[in-house]
Amino acid sequence: MFSIAEAQHIIFSTAKNWGVETVSINEALGRVLAEDLISDRDYPPFNRAAMDGYAFLSIDFIEKGIREYKIVEEIYAGYPSKNTLKSGECYKIMTGAATPIAANTIIRVEDTIQKENQVEFLVSEIQSGKNIAKQGEDKRKGELVLPRNIALNPIHIASIAVIGISQLQVYKLPSVVIISTGDEIKGINEKVDFFQIRESNSYTVESFLKRYNIPVRKKIIVPDNKEKLTQAISAALQTDILILSGGVSMGDADYVPEVLQALGVKKLFHKVAIKPGKPLWFGQNQYGVVFALPGNPFSVQVAFKIFIEPFLRKSFNLSSLTNIMKLPFGAIRKKKGSLDEYIPCCIDSTSQSKVVPTSINGSGDVTSIVNSQGIALHEKDRPELKEGDIVSFLYW
Amino acid sequence: MFSIAEAQHIIFSTAKNWGVETVSINEALGRVLAEDLISDRDYPPFNRAAMDGYAFLSIDFIEKGIREYKIVEEIYAGYPSKNTLKSGECYKIMTGAATPIAANTIIRVEDTIQKENQVEFLVSEIQSGKNIAKQGEDKRKGELVLPRNIALNPIHIASIAVIGISQLQVYKLPSVVIISTGDEIKGINEKVDFFQIRESNSYTVESFLKRYNIPVRKKIIVPDNKEKLTQAISAALQTDILILSGGVSMGDADYVPEVLQALGVKKLFHKVAIKPGKPLWFGQNQYGVVFALPGNPFSVQVAFKIFIEPFLRKSFNLSSLTNIMKLPFGAIRKKKGSLDEYIPCCIDSTSQSKVVPTSINGSGDVTSIVNSQGIALHEKDRPELKEGDIVSFLYW
Repeated sequence: MFSIAEAQHIIFSTAKNWGVETVSINEALGRVLAEDLISDRDYPPFNRAAMDGYAFLSIDFIEKGIREYKIVEEIYAGYPSKNTLKSGECYKIMTGAATPIAANTIIRVEDTIQKENQVEFLVSEIQSGKNIAKQGEDKRKGELVLPRNIALNPIHIASIAVIGISQLQVYKLPSVVIISTGDEIKGINEKVDFFQIRESNSYTVESFLKRYNIPVRKKIIVPDNKEKLTQAISAALQTDILILSGGVSMGDADYVPEVLQALGVKKLFHKVAIKPGKPLWFGQNQYGVVFALPGNPFSVQVAFKIFIEPFLRKSFNLSSLTNIMKLPFGAIRKKKGSLDEYIPCCIDSTSQSKVVPTSINGSGDVTSIVNSQGIALHEKDRPELKEGDIVSFLYW
Repeated sequence: MFSIAEAQHIIFSTAKNWGVETVSINEALGRVLAEDLISDRDYPPFNRAAMDGYAFLSIDFIEKGIREYKIVEEIYAGYPSKNTLKSGECYKIMTGAATPIAANTIIRVEDTIQKENQVEFLVSEIQSGKNIAKQGEDKRKGELVLPRNIALNPIHIASIAVIGISQLQVYKLPSVVIISTGDEIKGINEKVDFFQIRESNSYTVESFLKRYNIPVRKKIIVPDNKEKLTQAISAALQTDILILSGGVSMGDADYVPEVLQALGVKKLFHKVAIKPGKPLWFGQNQYGVVFALPGNPFSVQVAFKIFIEPFLRKSFNLSSLTNIMKLPFGAIRKKKGSLDEYIPCCIDSTSQSKVVPTSINGSGDVTSIVNSQGIALHEKDRPELKEGDIVSFLYW
């Protein structure tokens, strides 16, 4: 049985991006950039006034001791200046305006008194260059602003707007089909008998995929029947990612692995040393990959975070895997068995942030897990987690 | 000048939800639940088999010492059983199936040998009740599954599917208008002269709002002209949230506060002891609230996270404010001045997660901030942050 890392290694070996497409900046949030974005000019593009005040040449103040200046021009943001400066002169200037090169320092309006077209500086010393953001100090024209292979967040989107890019190249999204299997599974609006339960795994997977803007092409429920499974899976195999749940364990009606193999999906592994989610099956055909997950809701949730999301990120060339944090544990927890175990947890940030487990009755518990903010790893070789031990934590 | 907490207090005093509407579960991700969702039946709804194996009465094994059992029925998930058990009998049962009450324990298939319709148990001891998730152990019928006033994540959506809710009540979204002001500001596809810059603040705000599924009704750019500002703001005032950027500082062309007040927006405060974002103006009229932010991109980004997002969360009755973490600082940082200061940072999780500042040239730096994952607070009364000091950190 493979370890988590071994299983991830196999999964990652199948990852490749699904091509590139152009989208508008308005649709780019959450997409993964597929081109390097370069600065179209210097930033700031001019010596930008960082304060409302008076722009002057510092030598006038420092060496010539001038404290009263004649205002030769008012410069507003968005306008060029017309006049150059002589000794003893200054510009009145507004935040965001282009400071002419004749001036090299700005004094804040709060530190001055203006009388008609004269202004007195009320400070005893100044710092040359103060309150001017120099042209090109943030970025030079032609420098890299955003490298390819990052998932675009609001801050990135703003920087793309700054450099005037309204259309950009991002990686295409994969096509995904979700098949939930089981004779006990009913659709959300169907009547359930006492021995039946409602399908929820497709909602988990679909919701997680929305974070990457990935739509689900088709969601279906199929009973534990070899013919019907063969038919449904066969019709779904021409997809980039097929995600099944249920039917992968030791039960007599667990036909999913054999049906997948009969349909030409090459098994890359079956079973991982992880709890929950041990019976995970993973394979590949000429169209893409197949994740066949156990049917328990918590198993599906963990499998998504530990295997499917990292696969997506790897496929999109994202430089890091999901955002794992390493935080102190805020409880005591003993573990039996030899599996790496993921447990639902919350973050308690009353003082220093720590990871606190939430109660759950097992991987079939579909209602208690809602109180968790994510999952923490209780590693196989640690029989006990103590307060303060550092654990890996992943937000849902 | 108000502190951050005082400003937030005033902002929160204006928060009220925007009513309630019904949405489909397929549109509910990220929305805030406005009703308590109750368990429609016990969970598990029956004594659920947690393993593939054999269900029997533990007294047979423990007190009568029986090791070989007659299989009277095979029970699959999704089907009721037909037979009751006599001493020395068992059911063959699959994961997820309803275990009849005649049996109280399941032994894993791995720990048995089956010969025709007889099965031998290969273990020396068993635990009564093992491998059965008891009816109602996760949740009783009528118990609360999800309380109102939570932002729905993928795990919540799955639990809503489980209990068969396909339509649910969520808080309505506010209508939002964004006005970016400044003679120096050009639209993304317009030509920029050397003393002009491109508008990016509306992209920041719009992107952040998407996380709450809040659409922007209108985005406009208005020059620093009192009449044009009056006209534009006047046309935009009938909205739940009006967000302006630029024109709120000490400059001679900073007309936004006076225009807002002339149009009947009551000023609740102007200026907060925060860096960046000090000139923040906040007011209210009969339609809603107005945030007038400084024009610098980093100021807008911080103001959104520290004032606007908490206002939204408060309006949606979310029980906690944005997800603040408290983590050790991974650098040394001195601070001048008496303002609470937010600095762009990354999380380094090589070992225990710590907060590491990223370089930025000031609040006008529109390109360097892209390397940060969030912001950390350098509090006003701490002249120096040292390695290991605990700081508040917020993901973007």
